[in-house]
Amino acid sequence: MSHNSFGHLFRITTFGESHGVAIGCVVDGCPPGLALTEADIQGFLDKRKPGQSKYTTQRQEADQVKILSGVFEDDRTNGQVTTGTPICLMIENTDQRSKDYSDIRDKYRPGHADFTYDAKYGVRDYRGGGRSSARETASRVAGGAVARKVLDGIFIRGALVQVGPHKVNRDNWDWNEINNNPFFCPDAQAASQWADYLDGIRKSGSSIGAVVEVVASGVPAGWGAPVYGKLDQDLSSAMMSINASKAVEIGAGFGAACLTGEENADQIRMVDGKPQFQSNHAGGILGGISSGQDIVVRFAVKPTSSILTPRKSVTADGQDTDIITKGRHDPCVGIRAVPVGEAMMALVLADHKLRHRAQIGD
Amino acid sequence: MSHNSFGHLFRITTFGESHGVAIGCVVDGCPPGLALTEADIQGFLDKRKPGQSKYTTQRQEADQVKILSGVFEDDRTNGQVTTGTPICLMIENTDQRSKDYSDIRDKYRPGHADFTYDAKYGVRDYRGGGRSSARETASRVAGGAVARKVLDGIFIRGALVQVGPHKVNRDNWDWNEINNNPFFCPDAQAASQWADYLDGIRKSGSSIGAVVEVVASGVPAGWGAPVYGKLDQDLSSAMMSINASKAVEIGAGFGAACLTGEENADQIRMVDGKPQFQSNHAGGILGGISSGQDIVVRFAVKPTSSILTPRKSVTADGQDTDIITKGRHDPCVGIRAVPVGEAMMALVLADHKLRHRAQIGD
Amino acid sequence: MSHNSFGHLFRITTFGESHGVAIGCVVDGCPPGLALTEADIQGFLDKRKPGQSKYTTQRQEADQVKILSGVFEDDRTNGQVTTGTPICLMIENTDQRSKDYSDIRDKYRPGHADFTYDAKYGVRDYRGGGRSSARETASRVAGGAVARKVLDGIFIRGALVQVGPHKVNRDNWDWNEINNNPFFCPDAQAASQWADYLDGIRKSGSSIGAVVEVVASGVPAGWGAPVYGKLDQDLSSAMMSINASKAVEIGAGFGAACLTGEENADQIRMVDGKPQFQSNHAGGILGGISSGQDIVVRFAVKPTSSILTPRKSVTADGQDTDIITKGRHDPCVGIRAVPVGEAMMALVLADHKLRHRAQIGD
Amino acid sequence: MSHNSFGHLFRITTFGESHGVAIGCVVDGCPPGLALTEADIQGFLDKRKPGQSKYTTQRQEADQVKILSGVFEDDRTNGQVTTGTPICLMIENTDQRSKDYSDIRDKYRPGHADFTYDAKYGVRDYRGGGRSSARETASRVAGGAVARKVLDGIFIRGALVQVGPHKVNRDNWDWNEINNNPFFCPDAQAASQWADYLDGIRKSGSSIGAVVEVVASGVPAGWGAPVYGKLDQDLSSAMMSINASKAVEIGAGFGAACLTGEENADQIRMVDGKPQFQSNHAGGILGGISSGQDIVVRFAVKPTSSILTPRKSVTADGQDTDIITKGRHDPCVGIRAVPVGEAMMALVLADHKLRHRAQIGD
Repeated sequence: MSHNSFGHLFRITTFGESHGVAIGCVVDGCPPGLALTEADIQGFLDKRKPGQSKYTTQRQEADQVKILSGVFEDDRTNGQVTTGTPICLMIENTDQRSKDYSDIRDKYRPGHADFTYDAKYGVRDYRGGGRSSARETASRVAGGAVARKVLDGIFIRGALVQVGPHKVNRDNWDWNEINNNPFFCPDAQAASQWADYLDGIRKSGSSIGAVVEVVASGVPAGWGAPVYGKLDQDLSSAMMSINASKAVEIGAGFGAACLTGEENADQIRMVDGKPQFQSNHAGGILGGISSGQDIVVRFAVKPTSSILTPRKSVTADGQDTDIITKGRHDPCVGIRAVPVGEAMMALVLADHKLRHRAQIGD
Repeated sequence: MSHNSFGHLFRITTFGESHGVAIGCVVDGCPPGLALTEADIQGFLDKRKPGQSKYTTQRQEADQVKILSGVFEDDRTNGQVTTGTPICLMIENTDQRSKDYSDIRDKYRPGHADFTYDAKYGVRDYRGGGRSSARETASRVAGGAVARKVLDGIFIRGALVQVGPHKVNRDNWDWNEINNNPFFCPDAQAASQWADYLDGIRKSGSSIGAVVEVVASGVPAGWGAPVYGKLDQDLSSAMMSINASKAVEIGAGFGAACLTGEENADQIRMVDGKPQFQSNHAGGILGGISSGQDIVVRFAVKPTSSILTPRKSVTADGQDTDIITKGRHDPCVGIRAVPVGEAMMALVLADHKLRHRAQIGD
Repeated sequence: MSHNSFGHLFRITTFGESHGVAIGCVVDGCPPGLALTEADIQGFLDKRKPGQSKYTTQRQEADQVKILSGVFEDDRTNGQVTTGTPICLMIENTDQRSKDYSDIRDKYRPGHADFTYDAKYGVRDYRGGGRSSARETASRVAGGAVARKVLDGIFIRGALVQVGPHKVNRDNWDWNEINNNPFFCPDAQAASQWADYLDGIRKSGSSIGAVVEVVASGVPAGWGAPVYGKLDQDLSSAMMSINASKAVEIGAGFGAACLTGEENADQIRMVDGKPQFQSNHAGGILGGISSGQDIVVRFAVKPTSSILTPRKSVTADGQDTDIITKGRHDPCVGIRAVPVGEAMMALVLADHKLRHRAQIGD
Repeated sequence: MSHNSFGHLFRITTFGESHGVAIGCVVDGCPPGLALTEADIQGFLDKRKPGQSKYTTQRQEADQVKILSGVFEDDRTNGQVTTGTPICLMIENTDQRSKDYSDIRDKYRPGHADFTYDAKYGVRDYRGGGRSSARETASRVAGGAVARKVLDGIFIRGALVQVGPHKVNRDNWDWNEINNNPFFCPDAQAASQWADYLDGIRKSGSSIGAVVEVVASGVPAGWGAPVYGKLDQDLSSAMMSINASKAVEIGAGFGAACLTGEENADQIRMVDGKPQFQSNHAGGILGGISSGQDIVVRFAVKPTSSILTPRKSVTADGQDTDIITKGRHDPCVGIRAVPVGEAMMALVLADHKLRHRAQIGD
């Protein structure tokens, strides 16, 4: 058991604090012979990187990844490839501004983990949130980039589908729109609405929640396992482990509570000699095992608790106080959660691919 | 890694199929010296047992638990106590009606795991759903009863809070109502409404989804861990592992997507010399670690897919067909999910109590 | 992590005390579709069963195994087969003689785990050794029988190679002799010598240590993993986990300390177009990975501490005392360790087969 | 499960190849609040460092450790302390001599893991042995230094007790001698004999095996667990995971095979009001649980296979060949295994301390 590892056979172990020397992860269990360079990883990190638009934190971090181990190249390999040994990925922290942390050292910011970390550990690296900083998710994205290498033929895409009360219109859904706006929004019209809405949030020094959807296409039927190795269980664990995540659903999700058995069960017909489901309320998973349909997961991200409006709190030594969290924060931290959600999907699927192969063979 | 185990330091490993010889679980890691008899477990099993009302399946199972190991009594112990060695709990299957299963042997019931089990394993005990039957949850309830023994001073209660479109009115919430109706409903008025509504569902041979809420009071601040050992992550994994579960949320959950930072962050004030939160949007967990507030989890249960209306499907050998699932099924399987949700909460908390103690000491 | 589980992907979790209701294990991760009946398992249990000769304990136990789950048979399967779900194997305890345990309840038998169990747990099922009884090894043998099903083409055999100071003569080694004597001895001459020697031990109420050797043939090159998933590491863990085991060695083992690099390194030559090692000091494992040669493991079993000569000890409440352990004990417990060692070899190899397949594919 | 992690609750995950960018490890599960600086770790690394005498490899590596995460210091902490989050330790590889590796790229060195790595992975970083290099053990020593911080009051010491056929005389045992010779030898007379003996080995370009003994004093009674969490089982796994290790024994070890029950069982008497064992054949462990006596483990290290005498081998493409391994190798690699064995002892004990505390409290 490790509180800083995710996955079983394809596993990442992450380390590092927001303002320490470096963050990173060790990827273990990766099959050998997969082409892997730093550039393969960097592209995904750049999507998550802060400061890409005015809607995300203005902290400046290069988030430059370095592969320390687990790859090799000579004239007989197909470029640089994985060797099957652990791949250590390191990202040095460059924006360690010397600043005064006495405020968050002594006061518990409501909504943040300051109080609970102190309750647990009695000591806390409070600089920039330390280990509880969303900065840790860069390690997930780096690990997820390696996981994608294992998932040949599988296509993982994420989108922001709700910002505050404003949802995308699914009739407008166009995956190509994702990269045309700073929100990973698949609905051009919603993106435009969100821009205005988030300008207001940002200017008032407030923040707002959001919902992320991640879809994996091309997953064969049969991955996952019944009972406690359910694919949806592990996806749920994966998405809930993301900072600020408060809810997860698969397929129809909470909506399934309102459906009858007739409405909910996805009917099947033979099409071109193969069973084909006629709807996907299941989100691609039945009894914990993939059905071959798209795997569809959504998770809710709460608003960041770093806001300019004073909030009531207490100090570490038990005095009432008020606190304003200044600094370079995300008005909607859900935006940057999109590439993180994709990475977690990739990590779960890579792990389950190996777990399936172990018990069943290819 | 085990696909049939749940938990790390306090762990259950379950076994058994719906119509096999027996089901049960091995509870490992239990501290020694805790008073434990079969009667302590039986009470919880009886709450989950089928056939308690016309709103649950009429299958008749005694669900009589037998402790095979891990307990001991002599004149120096406080009655029968745990010894710290594995506790094997067995429930024999008594209602193994000889019936014709050829229909579900050859046809994939939409919404059920028939298709995916076959896709994975190539062989399947189809009698009564085999391993994918909700019958497996009896093992969870048995294991959860042992977990509660570890959680002295912690109070775990579950309720059904939504049936189809009908939610409880939280202003009417009364935990004492839970046992006054066959739905574990804390709102007497909603219970009465549900009775009518579910009569209609039942008589039409249909089924409906539901939402379960589980609350744990008395959990000290500090349990859980950051990053991949988050308490909410493990609760999410626990609840999503329950049969038919499609969604999980903690505290404000999906509602947090619509909240601003000001609304969402729970403010703190000193009360009687101790920090006290003034709201609980966090559901008792901040940064993956318990805050000392009530831990609040909800999960959505889809309608059972066993219904009397014919659904389109295919046969195992690739022919279009229609299927009706006759038998003794639950019109709202969410009802019996309430004690199961409580058990999973107990299992997660017992595990995290030991995990916390390991790293931090008491 | 589980203190009562062995293996990762092919895993057993054992339960039960010597004089409780039943002992057994849950086998998890077994591939589906393997023919498996109780008779397949019973044969191995019978080899380990007490009372087979005057050289083992006279306790009478039928050791009749019952499969509670994880298998299925219909007209389309090849007899009864595994389904890929957990296989629970139960052996009821039948020889629970009502006897007076007050002696071992209050006195710590030297060499036994009485003192350390009390130091750890504060409570102890002392009847027949409780959980520390060698009876637990029946569960290993049962689980090992299932593991063998996974190891098609691999041949696992064990032998007793030393009893007290008397070793087998390797020039006389004949695997066929194994079943011709009550010692699993491959050297007819040694077997005859041991018979006399052990008669003396037995009659004097004493006991003696032994060395067991287990060999696996047909393991392909490539199983295992470097660093902390070494095949020899897991074999070492497996053999040391057997009751009374005090030492393990692979290939040349402790003898390698006296060898030079020239003597120790197994040279290679092409034979019939394939690399062939010219000796096997490595015991079939290089860098933690199988080389395709026979895998050779030995482990030492200490003499049972239950003897008729009085030994100095203390009581649970801190008084000096003397103790004689009457009862039906093994003069050389190493004999019955042979089938147990074979089972542990099978469990390690089945696990590593699946672990290899997970990362590398077939 | 991870093939590159060791331990459960106190766990290291190592990474890196001999001639890659860096090696290191992530230490997870460390309790918070322990004083820890790079200097605390460096001292142990220096003991293992190559080039300390003519009896070890002349490779020059500074082995300078850098703590990347998991520690914190402010004016309220007791210097720099652990925070309970993962501690990443990195050692950059500085001696990456540009050299011609074509020989070991194409030829399988007998006794090395070249053949088996290729059989498993199909690709291999052959430079300096890559991942199979003993250089990985620097990560263990670094992790072990952190483990010692958890083991307040426990004293772990290692010694070389046999080189080739030459054993120490236990009557001469003096722990203070350990640092007076380049062999970690506790017997001054043996050290002098070994110096001559190893000069011969070294000059002839040969190598020789050895036996290491590691002793832990001050371990309380009660650590470990029965059946598959035995303290001796995990020590056995730990020591066998060390490069070149071929055998492990606890207490009397293989010698127990020759003992009678009377000789082997350690008798007990009350001394100063506490139970005291009168001998230690058990090596401090009974039934897998510590007895409070010294824990005594020995392991055999085979001679390094890198020698100057030509050995028969084959090429990767299946041709017979001869091979000489030039380079800077250890005539007796067992010497540098002493601090590695100590580190593995510390890692096992720190893990078991936390495992014990989880189940039992304290």
